[in-house]
Amino acid sequence: MGLANKVLAGDVRAAARLISRIEDEAPDALAEMDSLYPHTGRAYIVGVTGAPGAGKSTLTDNLIGFFRKKNMSVGVVAIDPTSALTGGALLGDRVRMQRHSTDREVFIRSLATRGWVGGLARATIGAIHVMDAMGKDVILVETVGSGQVEIDIVRATDTTIVVLTPSAGDEIQMMKAGILEAVDVFVINKADKEGTDRLRADLEAMLVAKARRPGELPAAVVLTEAIHDKGTEELAGAIMRHREFLVSSGEMAIRQRERIRLELLETIEGFVKDFVHQLDGGDYLEKLVDELVQGRTNPRRAAMEITGRLAGELNGLKSRGKDGL
Amino acid sequence: MGLANKVLAGDVRAAARLISRIEDEAPDALAEMDSLYPHTGRAYIVGVTGAPGAGKSTLTDNLIGFFRKKNMSVGVVAIDPTSALTGGALLGDRVRMQRHSTDREVFIRSLATRGWVGGLARATIGAIHVMDAMGKDVILVETVGSGQVEIDIVRATDTTIVVLTPSAGDEIQMMKAGILEAVDVFVINKADKEGTDRLRADLEAMLVAKARRPGELPAAVVLTEAIHDKGTEELAGAIMRHREFLVSSGEMAIRQRERIRLELLETIEGFVKDFVHQLDGGDYLEKLVDELVQGRTNPRRAAMEITGRLAGELNGLKSRGKDGL
Repeated sequence: MGLANKVLAGDVRAAARLISRIEDEAPDALAEMDSLYPHTGRAYIVGVTGAPGAGKSTLTDNLIGFFRKKNMSVGVVAIDPTSALTGGALLGDRVRMQRHSTDREVFIRSLATRGWVGGLARATIGAIHVMDAMGKDVILVETVGSGQVEIDIVRATDTTIVVLTPSAGDEIQMMKAGILEAVDVFVINKADKEGTDRLRADLEAMLVAKARRPGELPAAVVLTEAIHDKGTEELAGAIMRHREFLVSSGEMAIRQRERIRLELLETIEGFVKDFVHQLDGGDYLEKLVDELVQGRTNPRRAAMEITGRLAGELNGLKSRGKDGL
Repeated sequence: MGLANKVLAGDVRAAARLISRIEDEAPDALAEMDSLYPHTGRAYIVGVTGAPGAGKSTLTDNLIGFFRKKNMSVGVVAIDPTSALTGGALLGDRVRMQRHSTDREVFIRSLATRGWVGGLARATIGAIHVMDAMGKDVILVETVGSGQVEIDIVRATDTTIVVLTPSAGDEIQMMKAGILEAVDVFVINKADKEGTDRLRADLEAMLVAKARRPGELPAAVVLTEAIHDKGTEELAGAIMRHREFLVSSGEMAIRQRERIRLELLETIEGFVKDFVHQLDGGDYLEKLVDELVQGRTNPRRAAMEITGRLAGELNGLKSRGKDGL
């Protein structure tokens, strides 16, 4: 029995193994994912982002506890974009979530990535699919804020939570310019600290000023003290209200479509990447790099050359009847 | 006269316009870049990254002042990855660099991005080429740390500086897992603040523990108080020592090759993206997204289909003799 079938039968170790295969971009993982795909699309996906130290992991842990009390099963994808260069995984305070590690209805995975841009987004979408196919009701995607990866992940979630702290003046500056428009719930964590009232007032002023489409739900602002599990119910309530809005407004279908389009584009990118690296066992790419180093071509001409070669290979394979590739 | 020729003739406004065209991914910008490409490869590229509020802009400003005193011309690419969703630009304290805005030997540009992953990396490489072709001796690339974009940009620079502050416990945790291996110079900014000695000791312990290739220069640790322009000379000295190491060890050629390979891959990705979005005026992509939404295919099969179609179009164009595309 393949990994996908084991996952569908509820095998947790098979799920962990399949996600590892996806991370490694193993070719067999793709075929397994084909089998899982028809069983996806049911989980509710919540993104939790924010600066290091804001308390994302503790909040995520609290949310796991809340959803479990409601008898909902939970998946957690904890993303570590900083380890892209070393390939190592940042565990840090995610150890805290281990109190749920013996609960069969909770499945937690950390993801790292190596290499090419987009690899992490692909692995994240893959891990979400695996947890979705396992039947998890809610999937929490936790990631450190402020980079391109996070923006792609925001696009892949139903509800986006940004975790701030009262001292986070600079973070708000950044929010204003960027993530703001995509945030559904702002959390002010460590709300017992000085500066909470001012941050709340700033956020609310920003939200009033923000242009909204007719009927659009304004982002919620929730205060928490994650370390004392305070405000968790309010946060979960804000998530659920946003979900109801998405369903009743038809926005849910739009987000799902956006997510599917993103996945298709990532998959195409993966194909092209694999082809380029495999042409003549990678020698073709290096030959073109040589010519660029020597100034004998320019990047656009070299890209045209390799894309043309790609097309030749694709058609050659097609005419030999190899599954469209 | 095209924009590229104007840039080569030293026209600053043409340079600004060309970078805007690159940001907008305008097709004509590609042809202009072809003309600039033979005039690139001479500038020394320094990446400056770190968390918001660490003092990157002030340090960059100090470095501009230092290099100008040495009679070197300077380009600055200030990157704002957080604005990818809104398309807006984060100015913030970059205004501070404006004191150099009347100096013809200093060229400063902020970059934002919109859309597809990798767009920012492409625009950054493009802006670096423009400044390089303008004859800038040093190009400083300033970016907010911790995302995938930053990792790609690190790959595009000769010397990578990470700016920390004494209170940055969490940032160090992240460094350990990720950026660490790529950092050439650690800056402890706000070094008059408590915690500096401990942070320096932590960094030095980390650097001792880190595996190095034979002959590899250990990363430097430099203390600064950017707001008082203290430590700038030491920082510039560390950059120059690293540059000498790169040249004498042959590492420089390796980094340049890596940068060229990254650019080629980004260019290929851009081609494929354009093709996919243009097939049947974008309808083909939407048709496949429809089929995915309805569960009538899976992402891999859909990606195969569109890649096959791509190959057909490429070959069709080729046989009609359209410049390989």
